[in-house]
Amino acid sequence: MTALTTLVNHQIRLAARPNGLPTRAVWSFTTEPVTEPEAGGVLVKTLAISLDPAMRGWMNEGKSYIAPVGIGDVMRAGGVGTVLASKNPAFAVGDAVSCGTGVQEYCLVAGDNIKASGLFKIDLRLGTATQWLNVLGMPGMTGYFGLMDVGQPRAGETVVVSGAAGAVGQTVGQIAKIKGCRVVGIAGGPEKCAWVVRELGFDACIDYKNGEVKAGLKEHCPKGVDIYFDNVGGEILDAVLARINRKARIIICGAISQYNNTTPVKGPANYLSLLVNRARMEGIVVFDYADRYHLAVAEMAGYLKDGRMKSREDVIVGLDTFPETLLKLFNGENFGKLVLQIAPS
Amino acid sequence: MTALTTLVNHQIRLAARPNGLPTRAVWSFTTEPVTEPEAGGVLVKTLAISLDPAMRGWMNEGKSYIAPVGIGDVMRAGGVGTVLASKNPAFAVGDAVSCGTGVQEYCLVAGDNIKASGLFKIDLRLGTATQWLNVLGMPGMTGYFGLMDVGQPRAGETVVVSGAAGAVGQTVGQIAKIKGCRVVGIAGGPEKCAWVVRELGFDACIDYKNGEVKAGLKEHCPKGVDIYFDNVGGEILDAVLARINRKARIIICGAISQYNNTTPVKGPANYLSLLVNRARMEGIVVFDYADRYHLAVAEMAGYLKDGRMKSREDVIVGLDTFPETLLKLFNGENFGKLVLQIAPS
Repeated sequence: MTALTTLVNHQIRLAARPNGLPTRAVWSFTTEPVTEPEAGGVLVKTLAISLDPAMRGWMNEGKSYIAPVGIGDVMRAGGVGTVLASKNPAFAVGDAVSCGTGVQEYCLVAGDNIKASGLFKIDLRLGTATQWLNVLGMPGMTGYFGLMDVGQPRAGETVVVSGAAGAVGQTVGQIAKIKGCRVVGIAGGPEKCAWVVRELGFDACIDYKNGEVKAGLKEHCPKGVDIYFDNVGGEILDAVLARINRKARIIICGAISQYNNTTPVKGPANYLSLLVNRARMEGIVVFDYADRYHLAVAEMAGYLKDGRMKSREDVIVGLDTFPETLLKLFNGENFGKLVLQIAPS
Repeated sequence: MTALTTLVNHQIRLAARPNGLPTRAVWSFTTEPVTEPEAGGVLVKTLAISLDPAMRGWMNEGKSYIAPVGIGDVMRAGGVGTVLASKNPAFAVGDAVSCGTGVQEYCLVAGDNIKASGLFKIDLRLGTATQWLNVLGMPGMTGYFGLMDVGQPRAGETVVVSGAAGAVGQTVGQIAKIKGCRVVGIAGGPEKCAWVVRELGFDACIDYKNGEVKAGLKEHCPKGVDIYFDNVGGEILDAVLARINRKARIIICGAISQYNNTTPVKGPANYLSLLVNRARMEGIVVFDYADRYHLAVAEMAGYLKDGRMKSREDVIVGLDTFPETLLKLFNGENFGKLVLQIAPS
């Protein structure tokens, strides 16, 4: 085993707050020596990190559901990795873990920061490391609790999900199918739409890039929309609002169409459909469900095992590609959960 | 008693769909002979009708929570009146009733239309006839069930209500006070604001006409906003969204600021505050609670009797003034529940 003191930790830090899309200029590239953990601490070698639309929000100043990343700080990211050194009895060298690693090769977690860093052991028999960033990780938990707790689907209802080929969307749609719903996805491009229907078993998928969201909703939701899981906001949210049923539930998970706006966010002009239809629009933040993650993981690992749930990760290799890889989320280039692989294994 | 056949029924009908504010040109003025009810039917003499912001929506074509008023039809309105003739054993001549009378002097309700017309006897010991159009009528029911069922207030929470001096707003604020909440109103002009605080007992009232809604919310809601009962939409909704607490509830009852737009409705640009705060925005339509009106009426009549609830009606006399009187709602000129008195008693 390499002596820890010879290792160098390559890191990516937020150098400036972006205006619009986060270009390479907002990042700085730093190195630090790797140090031994102190009593109670753990040193994690990052295998891969999750790239998520929410990252864009963390880069802004101002109040949100989580503090913004400070200028000069290592960029926040959830990751999976391996314990390289441990002075904590709950973790042994070689353990596979999930952790808020940040965008860096090594993450030193202090003993009093174990819980806040989200460090926990993962069971690779339940899913692969990248699945632990996808359906068994934050996106999966977000989809599961957003759909089940906020949406409360009933068999036979029609569920629409945007970003259907993304990490959250693929989870939402597949769970909704398992629960007996009719599921219509919205995704960008014929390849993603075909995959969502053929591989994931959605009943239909509307290609928003061909500009036929309204017509697609009319065609594929003949009984209206009971649940809309919104990852995108903007015009698609308005189009769905125009087709909701009485007592519909709209889960606001994100609004990727608005995150890089340099103009004000576009509010949903059709929001009065909530009144007409006695419907509900409600936000979800996954952290609120942390004490029930283990239940959702167990349920979803079962679906992965029996083949009722599939997952797709879009894995890009190399820490240095982070700035450009992140942008794939915002132009819709990623196909499946976007993962940045940092170490070969 | 006058022979029915000598009576003439003056009516106001919708002649054209308005574009923007409904001017006198959209109405036609007609007369019809009054006829005896047939078996099971009831003839009601209209004493007064309720003028409500919702009327503007009924004048538009297109799907809503209720069918639009047809061109050439007597304008829909809820009213109170007296039974003038009855061939229905449940109603006797002289009974005080509430009824969807429409904007006309006499309303003939057919036997098979009793329920759909909303005809029921009112007890003038519980409240005056105009209170039966206000706190004991549709606005009161809307405020009661919107606040209690959708909002679910808890003692100590902060409740904000717009249109605070209007029919729904005065009910909402007073119930919220009775339930132990801090209540902040939003109304137009110092006179209304002073009345809301001094007479109705709100903790504060923000005058939106002086342009200080944001500063007022900050000052008067130091612990943030837990419930917002929205009657107005537009910029005020956005200002409140910026100050909501975790798990806040926003009740969408109306959007009077948007009803006469000739441009698209302004959607709430700050709607992502729902996400950040895991908050909920939900529509209310009062008809859904019809089987519990009697419970709310009993509760509110108790508050009226013991002085914990006050009501204010702005009564304008004369059927012919209907077109101009209705406009008072949209320029904020009414002070209290707007009522059009049609007969002297």
